[in-house]
Amino acid sequence: MTAKIESGVAIPGNELSYLFNKLVNVGIMQFLNHNSLTVIQLEWVLLLMSTALNMSIPNSTSGGVSFTDELRARQQCIAEITEMIHVASLLHDDVLDDADTRRGIGSLNFVMGNKLAVLAGDFLLSRACVALASLKNTEVVSLLAKVVEHLVTGETMQMTTSSEKRCSMEYYLQKTYYKTASLISNSCKAIAILTGQTAEVSVLAYSYGRNLGLAYQLIDDVLDFTGTSASLGKGSLSDIRHGIITAPILFAMEEFPQLRGIVDKGFDDSANVDLALEYLGKSHGIQKTRDLATYHANIAAAAIDAFPESDDEDVLRSRRALIDLTFRVIKRTK
Amino acid sequence: MTAKIESGVAIPGNELSYLFNKLVNVGIMQFLNHNSLTVIQLEWVLLLMSTALNMSIPNSTSGGVSFTDELRARQQCIAEITEMIHVASLLHDDVLDDADTRRGIGSLNFVMGNKLAVLAGDFLLSRACVALASLKNTEVVSLLAKVVEHLVTGETMQMTTSSEKRCSMEYYLQKTYYKTASLISNSCKAIAILTGQTAEVSVLAYSYGRNLGLAYQLIDDVLDFTGTSASLGKGSLSDIRHGIITAPILFAMEEFPQLRGIVDKGFDDSANVDLALEYLGKSHGIQKTRDLATYHANIAAAAIDAFPESDDEDVLRSRRALIDLTFRVIKRTK
Repeated sequence: MTAKIESGVAIPGNELSYLFNKLVNVGIMQFLNHNSLTVIQLEWVLLLMSTALNMSIPNSTSGGVSFTDELRARQQCIAEITEMIHVASLLHDDVLDDADTRRGIGSLNFVMGNKLAVLAGDFLLSRACVALASLKNTEVVSLLAKVVEHLVTGETMQMTTSSEKRCSMEYYLQKTYYKTASLISNSCKAIAILTGQTAEVSVLAYSYGRNLGLAYQLIDDVLDFTGTSASLGKGSLSDIRHGIITAPILFAMEEFPQLRGIVDKGFDDSANVDLALEYLGKSHGIQKTRDLATYHANIAAAAIDAFPESDDEDVLRSRRALIDLTFRVIKRTK
Repeated sequence: MTAKIESGVAIPGNELSYLFNKLVNVGIMQFLNHNSLTVIQLEWVLLLMSTALNMSIPNSTSGGVSFTDELRARQQCIAEITEMIHVASLLHDDVLDDADTRRGIGSLNFVMGNKLAVLAGDFLLSRACVALASLKNTEVVSLLAKVVEHLVTGETMQMTTSSEKRCSMEYYLQKTYYKTASLISNSCKAIAILTGQTAEVSVLAYSYGRNLGLAYQLIDDVLDFTGTSASLGKGSLSDIRHGIITAPILFAMEEFPQLRGIVDKGFDDSANVDLALEYLGKSHGIQKTRDLATYHANIAAAAIDAFPESDDEDVLRSRRALIDLTFRVIKRTK
């Protein structure tokens, strides 16, 4: 037996498949589909970004790897890593919030207990780290490790009980960047770096992701109040009911400073929610939030327009799709 | 305001310090002290390993960085990363098990809810990733990312409900490697790699960590039955009461195959626990587990003895301390 003990211990693939079987049995695929089939399909954006940047690079430092299958595989790897980090954060967020549903589907941690949700998240994070390391690019590793830190930072920022912070637009936008826009912006940048693009192009790719992410979240915040209709109070109101103050209320507060007193009382009392909605209805909060989202969507589109010229049809088609996405994000109703 | 929005978003250090203040307020230091002041002080082992390997390296490929402050700082960084991964796994394990105490101290997730425990673990993991990336050594990143995966694998292996697996010594040892020994063995290897040692020396460093970790866990399993005394039933019996089958029972089962039927019934009924203890008392299970621990401790010590010769007094003193630790692990009573 001792020989057995000392022999190398092989990774028991079937043990990890145990975890996956569990996940599949309780409908992880359903869970993932329902979370990922939002207007921004993260992985899809990143694959479009990859193609959009696959033009020939003058004085490339990437050793002429552009257009090769290997480069494509590395870009695809970034997209998968990003998706893994994204899903891991969703799984852990559900544990955090003791959420019993996520978009109507029973959340994984509700169905199976916290145990598998935390484990599955950790497993995805570790797989993301292993995949990252295999890319052998320390700048990219750093970028995406920072993203995980940002996701945690955003979550802690949202937990603040300071009235001053909760009522600050600047604080809200920082939190939104960390929670939503950091992942997509830094993944876009990572793809540009892997593709061997210049620092200037990497910044444009980052800017696209950052502004698309911010626009997406701002519209999300509007839809929480309006739902698919344009009328107030038709959304799920889940943010405000959880005491989370978002852009529409913050803009309304600029017009009606007395709203702050209502916010400070908290929203455990639904009469207080109604009062806040009343002020929001009288204000331009919803429209100003939409305007700000449009502003960010336009910056995102401008970043793509500023990419170095290319006459490759695939490249141009991908860029058009990325720009098209900036409009769809603004117009989405769910 | 738009200028503000578009300006770079600085990391709000005070938000992360919010998390830390929370942690300190609820006694994270106490929590950590109580978990880390075990006989194996992980960080301490790694710093000893660093010094033990800081001899001159013939034909070094590390560009002659040995003995420099920079090398020392990088080794220290590995020790800190390892400790971060370790604490993160403890925090998440507590969430997993809905544990309300850990070694008698109210666990963090009990005191503050799952939310902060998951966040704090994720935060430590992300910090570990950032620190790892800063070392700019993809082999080391890979090694330590694998460790996180192993911790998850070990946890899922422990969740198995298959009788065949739960009653297999080989399965138990694999699980023990993943849950306990992988972290220390791969960290030791990472230090050897960073120090610019040969592959042969790296394998010895790995072997030390692996065998020390296995010996530590085997004694832990014995103490769960005996506690500080040598008598059966004086320990906390927490493993068997949670249905976790460890080496003493597995060895006893080799002598008394009828024990398997008892194990298969589960241990919700404390009469069944008593019955299992009776068989364990009649068997050589405890002694055979101690023997196996001693066997592994000896391999660990032999690995240090096989390190390349050195006449540096610091190096020799560190090696003696590492060997001394292999004896202390065997003799510990708590």
